[in-house]
Amino acid sequence: MNTQPKTLLQKENNFSEWYGEVLKRAEILDVRYPVKGVYVWYPYGYKLRNLIYTILRSLMDKEHKETLFPLLIPKEELMKEREHIKGFEEEVFWVTKGGSTELDIPLALRPTSETAIYPVFKVWIRSHRDLPLRIYQVVNTFRYETKHTRPLIRLREITSFKEAHTAHADRADAEEQVKKAVALYKKFFDELAIPYVITRRPDWDKFPGAEYSIAFDTLMPDGKTMQIATIHLLGESFARTFDIKYEDKDGSLKHVNQTCYGISERCVAAVISVHGDEHGLVLPPEVAPIQVVIVPIVYSSEGKNGEVEKVCLAMYEELKKAGIRAFFDNSEDRPGAKYYRWEMKGVPLRIEVGPRDIRNNRCEFVRRDDFSRMQVPLGDVVSEVKGTLNEIQNGIAKRARETFFANIYKTGGDEEMEELSTKAAHGIVSIFLCESERCGQEVEEHLGVNVLGEALYGDGNENGEGKCMICSRKAKRVYVARAY
Amino acid sequence: MNTQPKTLLQKENNFSEWYGEVLKRAEILDVRYPVKGVYVWYPYGYKLRNLIYTILRSLMDKEHKETLFPLLIPKEELMKEREHIKGFEEEVFWVTKGGSTELDIPLALRPTSETAIYPVFKVWIRSHRDLPLRIYQVVNTFRYETKHTRPLIRLREITSFKEAHTAHADRADAEEQVKKAVALYKKFFDELAIPYVITRRPDWDKFPGAEYSIAFDTLMPDGKTMQIATIHLLGESFARTFDIKYEDKDGSLKHVNQTCYGISERCVAAVISVHGDEHGLVLPPEVAPIQVVIVPIVYSSEGKNGEVEKVCLAMYEELKKAGIRAFFDNSEDRPGAKYYRWEMKGVPLRIEVGPRDIRNNRCEFVRRDDFSRMQVPLGDVVSEVKGTLNEIQNGIAKRARETFFANIYKTGGDEEMEELSTKAAHGIVSIFLCESERCGQEVEEHLGVNVLGEALYGDGNENGEGKCMICSRKAKRVYVARAY
Repeated sequence: MNTQPKTLLQKENNFSEWYGEVLKRAEILDVRYPVKGVYVWYPYGYKLRNLIYTILRSLMDKEHKETLFPLLIPKEELMKEREHIKGFEEEVFWVTKGGSTELDIPLALRPTSETAIYPVFKVWIRSHRDLPLRIYQVVNTFRYETKHTRPLIRLREITSFKEAHTAHADRADAEEQVKKAVALYKKFFDELAIPYVITRRPDWDKFPGAEYSIAFDTLMPDGKTMQIATIHLLGESFARTFDIKYEDKDGSLKHVNQTCYGISERCVAAVISVHGDEHGLVLPPEVAPIQVVIVPIVYSSEGKNGEVEKVCLAMYEELKKAGIRAFFDNSEDRPGAKYYRWEMKGVPLRIEVGPRDIRNNRCEFVRRDDFSRMQVPLGDVVSEVKGTLNEIQNGIAKRARETFFANIYKTGGDEEMEELSTKAAHGIVSIFLCESERCGQEVEEHLGVNVLGEALYGDGNENGEGKCMICSRKAKRVYVARAY
Repeated sequence: MNTQPKTLLQKENNFSEWYGEVLKRAEILDVRYPVKGVYVWYPYGYKLRNLIYTILRSLMDKEHKETLFPLLIPKEELMKEREHIKGFEEEVFWVTKGGSTELDIPLALRPTSETAIYPVFKVWIRSHRDLPLRIYQVVNTFRYETKHTRPLIRLREITSFKEAHTAHADRADAEEQVKKAVALYKKFFDELAIPYVITRRPDWDKFPGAEYSIAFDTLMPDGKTMQIATIHLLGESFARTFDIKYEDKDGSLKHVNQTCYGISERCVAAVISVHGDEHGLVLPPEVAPIQVVIVPIVYSSEGKNGEVEKVCLAMYEELKKAGIRAFFDNSEDRPGAKYYRWEMKGVPLRIEVGPRDIRNNRCEFVRRDDFSRMQVPLGDVVSEVKGTLNEIQNGIAKRARETFFANIYKTGGDEEMEELSTKAAHGIVSIFLCESERCGQEVEEHLGVNVLGEALYGDGNENGEGKCMICSRKAKRVYVARAY
């Protein structure tokens, strides 16, 4: 039996408004801070953020060590790598004063930490025995965004930038690391039930200072893609700039080969946007701050501390003992108000317990993902909760994947521009496009899209060669979409 | 049997050098970052920091919710509370440029977050039902220190400031919160085995904007005290400035009553400095990144993968399964080099396993705190490790307490200034001093000390009244010491 409540918020047709309302009503972020592009994490939002980052950290910790580097970067260090600074100089916040004193050297708030970390790599790395070196940190970084800012997505203070930096003896090992990072990020987003395409960004859109960049993009409800992770092969460029060398086994001095890769709180934005529905958040149980909420259905004649409360409390204790993040809502609000609140906050499972249930030695489960109900014997609650949370996790992932792949359109090659443009307004389009920037720009202009890049890594679209839809030269499959 | 190795580092007589050497050799912090007063956390140091903050967070989480507020504070907000800004204005870093654009309003890097958080409290708090509100965050904060900076102790970027902020319906509830915060911090430092005195800071040295401030101070090996925690009753001062009101049960609007309290990475500095010895770190097992290191004593004739390695590996797996942070050092280094390394890093317990041990079905424990050795049957390793770690934790705490209290000198009242001055050069002196700033300053000048404040909270010194040693008026016990 489904008892889906009335629709509260429009999602598909007005994603922007939906997003703002959900962040507010589910208490993820407060946007009322008096500086553009920076926001306040509510406790509930921060708990969600922490659970997501706990997964990320545990994946990272297997082969990386966590460190922490300073926020402030001296101007001269930031300016050293020419390509790099060209990419960032218009986005850097500058500290120029301490107290009433003008600083001798302006200090940048890190937009990303290559130029803070690599001067230290220079002194940490001496010998081939120090390699590979793999570190990461989770830090706040800053961008002076002049475009329209948006919570979790386009920020002036990125509060939760997980950036990894690695150094290797040779290019082969660095390229191997790129593959490992891709595998790690796949695992991460799979746990969040977030679908993605992986592409090699076109040369004109790679990370400033990198040889090439690989990116993960997911699809937002408004049909635009959002970049949720990037991985860069830096090669020797930074090693030459910052003079990072090691003594090889034969005694010769060689530059290290580097990679770096990052994920920001856009991963939280993705979880919210991809899974949410007209009633608010729909959180995968893996990352839900509250996995199960117990709602007593008490009639005023019974009052508090009756049989229902006792059963609920025992159930709550039992669930907690089993390692489940449960919450017993014994507030004074009416059941309807409680349903609304916990649905908005995306709690995967609600358990209702009323006097009639207790007489029949049962309770009622209501799933957040599809609002289906089932009756469960009181003695089976823990095992049934575990099973149901598992089903919900899988159900959410399946639905997200289906929606995602239904919105990837693969061209046959003979479509009109207009047709492709319409397709690209709702999702991702896979076309044949050569590597030249000119053809890329032409496609971007004509279709009103961004070129995401060459399709990689086994979704079936990376195969096949064809003719560039602009110049007809030999070309590979490339994804295009309107991008955030 | 004790087999204490040769002394490597002087601690008591040259604490400053000892501290720098230990931070480097134990890989806690790298000081080679090219900005004054900011440092790089090595992975090992950051692990130690994380374990310490895990304890702090778990204590906080019982009654506080974790949030995150922005780093950047608009000048006008920072300037609102007059007392507050007077205390901080010469220490604030200012962001004045974004890219090449001059900002309309300069943005401060938070020196502390009252002025970032309280404008948001104003919108979060509506009714008595919203109170008490208790939140905390762990963030980087910034001070433009002009004095000599020192890793973990006096910083321009405090990387790990845990700050709590609470709002209450009335003053009684706020004062109750102050007591709770004191109890919480006591528990925290007890777990770190760090002894402390708790004082009410003199009025002229309280937190800018507070009604009164309570502080924890510990004693460093050079005889100076270091403030390791502060707790402030703010009363209604900020609530009036930021217009934070709630509707009481009777419908009337009232200002909230506030407290705030904080701990920085000085808690890490305390663990390092108080417990360390001539051989490096001595870490309490509770926070040691590695609690047990297993060192195989292999003779070259046996080579790798022999019986010894097999036994060590099984032991390592067993310890890990029991939830103990163990490490098996099967590197190529000689045992002596391994001992040196892990002693320097403060690993509480070393287990040595050689061929003769295995023939006798035993291994050897060596404690880091006193270098005592004991033989342990191989079958008892897990239970003996648990017991020994517990003993080490208690032993470290006991030693620290004894040293600490041996260096608190309580005046009879008839000592000469010179005698007290000598005492104060090595520790804390408890004198009778009235509350006037003039008498306080006179004592500070004559004894070359700082007035910590009135002795509080049950160390026996808070009792008794006497005559102020300067003006002979009625006075309470006050601690003085040379302070960091």
